[in-house]
Formats: sequence, structure tokens, C-alpha cells
Amino acid sequence: MSKPKLFIPGPVDVAPETYAAMGSATIGHRGADFEELYASIQPGIRQIVGTERPVFFSTSSAWGVMEGCIRNLVQKKVLNLCCGAFSDKWFGVSESCGKQAEKIQVEWGQPIDPEAVRAKLAEGGFDTVTLVHNETSTGVLNPLEEIAKVVKSFDDVMLVVDTVSSLSAMPIDFDGLGIDVLLAGVQKAIALPPGLAVFATSEAALERAAKLEDRGYYFDFLEFAKNDAKNNTPSTPAIPHLYALRERVNVMLSEGLENRFKRHEENNAMVHAWGEKHGFELLPPEGYRSKSLSCFVTPENLDQGGWIKAVIAKHGLAINGGYGKIKGKTFRISNMGNETAETMQELLDALDAELPEFLS
Amino acid sequence: MSKPKLFIPGPVDVAPETYAAMGSATIGHRGADFEELYASIQPGIRQIVGTERPVFFSTSSAWGVMEGCIRNLVQKKVLNLCCGAFSDKWFGVSESCGKQAEKIQVEWGQPIDPEAVRAKLAEGGFDTVTLVHNETSTGVLNPLEEIAKVVKSFDDVMLVVDTVSSLSAMPIDFDGLGIDVLLAGVQKAIALPPGLAVFATSEAALERAAKLEDRGYYFDFLEFAKNDAKNNTPSTPAIPHLYALRERVNVMLSEGLENRFKRHEENNAMVHAWGEKHGFELLPPEGYRSKSLSCFVTPENLDQGGWIKAVIAKHGLAINGGYGKIKGKTFRISNMGNETAETMQELLDALDAELPEFLS
Repeated sequence: MSKPKLFIPGPVDVAPETYAAMGSATIGHRGADFEELYASIQPGIRQIVGTERPVFFSTSSAWGVMEGCIRNLVQKKVLNLCCGAFSDKWFGVSESCGKQAEKIQVEWGQPIDPEAVRAKLAEGGFDTVTLVHNETSTGVLNPLEEIAKVVKSFDDVMLVVDTVSSLSAMPIDFDGLGIDVLLAGVQKAIALPPGLAVFATSEAALERAAKLEDRGYYFDFLEFAKNDAKNNTPSTPAIPHLYALRERVNVMLSEGLENRFKRHEENNAMVHAWGEKHGFELLPPEGYRSKSLSCFVTPENLDQGGWIKAVIAKHGLAINGGYGKIKGKTFRISNMGNETAETMQELLDALDAELPEFLS
Repeated sequence: MSKPKLFIPGPVDVAPETYAAMGSATIGHRGADFEELYASIQPGIRQIVGTERPVFFSTSSAWGVMEGCIRNLVQKKVLNLCCGAFSDKWFGVSESCGKQAEKIQVEWGQPIDPEAVRAKLAEGGFDTVTLVHNETSTGVLNPLEEIAKVVKSFDDVMLVVDTVSSLSAMPIDFDGLGIDVLLAGVQKAIALPPGLAVFATSEAALERAAKLEDRGYYFDFLEFAKNDAKNNTPSTPAIPHLYALRERVNVMLSEGLENRFKRHEENNAMVHAWGEKHGFELLPPEGYRSKSLSCFVTPENLDQGGWIKAVIAKHGLAINGGYGKIKGKTFRISNMGNETAETMQELLDALDAELPEFLS
């Protein structure tokens, strides 16, 4: 049976051209062929991240780099900003690394308040803050710019930003905002199959890492920087994913990043309008809604599981029925990656076609 | 320009069927489709590892799991058995995790002496030993069975074995030898593109891990075990590699593991006979020579770099010119993966054809 096309918030649908690129001949990773591949991706991915600094490739999911941030940066204490499944979990990961950690916890669906961050940091003792830009579990887009300003107003506090489901869907200005580490997986807006994470570090982040002696090897920022200088990676990289990343980055640059951001915004607006038509409420409040996915509150009169299954069975299109503690109570529609107004309309039409049967 | 076929000791040549499998439709990793994929690989990969226990899939290179072993197991002190680039580096990685570490260091090309391990462990204070079964940088096959017996004769000492370039090329008996952690990358004898590692743990290893509170998340053995119970992985997995692994494991079982081991042994013997014909000396001593790759000492009268380049340019076949501090002083020929007597003969003929021009 053929698999449904994915409109879940990651992994998303992958283009045939991307699969084809993944099948390019395997090369040795300690030679000129690999160095060329590595270098060829840099200009494009740096533009997407909004930096003139190198972007590193980690053969891991984003969680590997998220743990790496804790191990490379936290000497004193980390403040984890928690507003959903992924940002909440980062607090647990901080503790599992044997680090001092505190959190600001808001209700799922709510954004992080920059002033709460200011108040907490003013208590002193923190040297690192973690923020999930676009909380994939709730569809909340946090006020990155405002939070960055607050964090940067404190000396020697590193700002780590997870852009897993926003990178390449929304503009990010790594250099301009003074972000210290930005990271993302590739199976969300970048539309690769999972298996690779990308991240960038500030010079200050590398200096901090140099002071931490038990930061390990696999996610050691200094190893990444040292190898990047030779257009290489510390450990054997996921070569198929780098071929695929090159292919997708080239497609993004051909489309134009501004056009790409606009397309995501417009497709997202289509989903919002569709939800409004049905009276479906978005979980996040106005002004804090992701442009790459939409998280709706499941109405009481909807058999959500039945509906989603019917859309998969009859139309071959899959949306998601909620994550973590709001599974079954919310549903999520992704507009990340390669989707167009036409493909989004196909999805919405399919959702509409099956909806009446599952409303009571 | 098309890329040369790889006879380097990893990554190795990948079959078209494996690339095709990698291009299978991406699926959500928190659903039945993924659970089926995960479960379908288990019987075969367990047979290859020689265990009835689960085999975990880590989206990382082998180094990630090698670091994970240190973080999950070392409470007191680790003994790293060092005999080449990769085994030596494990000592540095142990220290980078902030752990107490000592090593037994032998000259590159020499194997580890089980009696030296016994003497060192008898000094006391160790709780973990790391061994590279088949040291890829030197072509040394260490006496795993003898070393395992020695390590198991000490109470509460964990035996960690890197089988990066031996797994599926040579028989391994995880359960029978009482190995505590066995790990391997997939881009060597398993013949996948890089981007995934596989590993198995003993019950004792999981019990030890439970006592270490700062073991982190990404390589946390208990997270792998917990998710394995649901046929899943802790973090988003490299789905393309799991499709490819399923394909290759099925091919291995069709071939029959005994036939596969025999094929590797015979192809390796071809390379040894070819070397003998030319008077090329193997770096490792008799009795400690890998069956999956051959590491020869470069004769003084051979322009090795010119020779290797000519074979690539004229025949499209690549061997390797040495690794680390023996780069240029040795050359390595892999017979891992899908190679047959015919394809090995093609390589040896190509090497022969270009050799005279580069001998002085």
C-alpha cells in the first residue's frame, strides 16, 4: 500500500528530486569530493540562517545538538523557556546532563513573555537560555526578537534558539539578533527525510565551549569549528542527506527566500481561513501563531481520529492528531516545505469532504 | 564526472537496490508504519549481532555511540585498549566526557594482548573496557574471544566492543561472549551510506546506566530500551537508512550469514595472495589480520599517491592511501560489503595494470 502524503508537522513530504539527490554515489568523507560538497552548501544555508558564519552539519536529530548546547555552554545554570512538548523536554535534558537548570513554564498554547525572561535573568546566576522559536507541539511562534533583546541585555548569557520548524519557512537573522546557537532538523520546512541537523554558533559560544572540559566529543562545538575550516565534519557524516540538502538549498535560492517566506505565509493563511470557516479555534493566541503549521483545538463534536483516518484512507493525505499531553485534543496541519496553494487546497478539500461524517 | 567505486575501508560501494530503498516514502516516526519498519529489521540484525536482545538504531555515526558508552557506563574508571587511530581516539573521548581513563597502548599494527589486559585490570579500579574488534586504520583483528574471557573474569567490568568494520563480515557472538555493548556504523561491511549506527546492550549495561545520573539524553541507553519496547527510537530517526538497512539485512539473510562470512574470508584471501605476489607486507602480524580489509606497508620504491590516483582516473576504482599517522606509509584495500570474487579481481587487475609505472 502506498504511504500517505505527509501534512504532519514533520517529517513532511519529500520531493522526488530530493530522493534522487540522496541516491548520488557515496564518496569518501576525507577527500576533495566531500570537501566540495560541504563547501557548496555553505553560501545558501548561511543565507537561510541569516549568518556569515559557518553552518555545521550534525549527523543526528535536532535533539543531539540541543543536548550539545547544554554540554558546550552551561557552566553555571541554564534557563529553559518551556511552552510545549519540545521546549519542556529541554529542561529534562539539561538536568540529564548533570547541569543546574531552572525553567519558566507557561501553559501549552501560550507564548513566552520576554518580560518574564528579564525578571528571571535578573535574579542572576544564569549563563544560558534555551528558546524554541516555533513550538511544533502547540503551533506557538515565540517573540524571538524581543526575547533576544532581553537576553542580550545581560552579560555573558548565551541565547540558544531551536528553529526546528521555522528555519527556511520564516526569516531568521542569526547575526542581527546576536543568537549564540541556532539549530534545526532538516525534516521540517527544509523538507528532507530525517537524519541530519544543522546549527550555527557565535564566536562567544565557541569561547564558552573552550572553558568546559567535559563537553564530550560527538557534539563538541570546537570539533565542528576545527573541521569546518577544512570543509569537513568531526565524524563520518550522513552523506546522502548532504547531497539532498545541497539540492534543496539550491531550490530555495532559485525560488528566492522572500518568495519562499511569502509562500509559507500565504499557505498558512489559507489554513487559518479554512479553520475559521469551520469555527475551529487555533490554540495559540493572535500574534503568536506559527506560519509553518497550524494547531487547532479539537471541537467536542468531532470524532478526530475517525476523520484523520478517513482522509488518509480515501485521499492519501495525512494530518496530525496532536502531540504529547494534547494528543486527541488538538490537530495540526503543516504547510512546511514544498507545498503550494494548489496542494494545500487539495488537502483542505479532502478534509472538508470527510468532515461531515465525523461531526455529531 | 562519475565518482569512483569505493574499495576504501568505509564508506564502501552501495548497491542500487539500497539507494532505491532509501528513497521509499518518508513516514511519520510516531505511528504504525514506522513501528512495522523497526520491528521488521530486528530478527535479522539480531542474528548478525549474535544476540536475542534488541538492537538499537542511533541516528549518528559510531562515534556517537562510542561516546554514549562512556557516559552510560563509566562510574569509576575506563580502560581503553589502544592499537590504532580509532581505538586511540576513544581514550581522548573518554577524557573529554570528564571521566577517569587509562589505556593500554600498543604500536600501530600490533594487536592487544589479553594477558596485558588481565594485568591492568588486576590493578583494580576499572569498571569499563573499550575494545575495537577490527581496527580499521591498521587492519588488525584483535583476539575478541580471549579478551572477552579476561574481562568477564573480573566482577562488574563492562566490555564495550566496536565492531565498526567487522559486523556482518565476520561472525560475532554477543550473547555467548558476554559483551556488554556492541556497536557498529552501517557504512562498512553492512554497505549502507553513512548516517546510522547500530548497537546492542546487555542487561547489566542497562543496570549500570541507571546508576549514572548525568548520562544525558541523546545516547541514553535507557531511552533506547524504553522506546525499543514500542518499536521506536528516542529521537527522530534517519528513516531512509532504516529502509536501507531492512533491504540489506534481507539480502544478507538470503545469502546466508555463513556464506557471507565465507565470501568475505575468500575475497580477503585473494587480496592477501595478490599482495604476496608483489612482495607487499601486511602491517599486522599473522593471526591478527582483518578479514574485511587489508593494510599493506607501502614499499619504499612505490609512488603510492600516483598509483592510487591513476587507478581512480583510468579504472574508476578507489583504494585508500593510509590513515592518520601512517597515511602515505600504508595502503588499505577493503573487501567489505557486496564485493564478489569477480569484482575483487577487477580491482586487483586494475591495481596491477597501473603498478609498473609507479614502481622505481
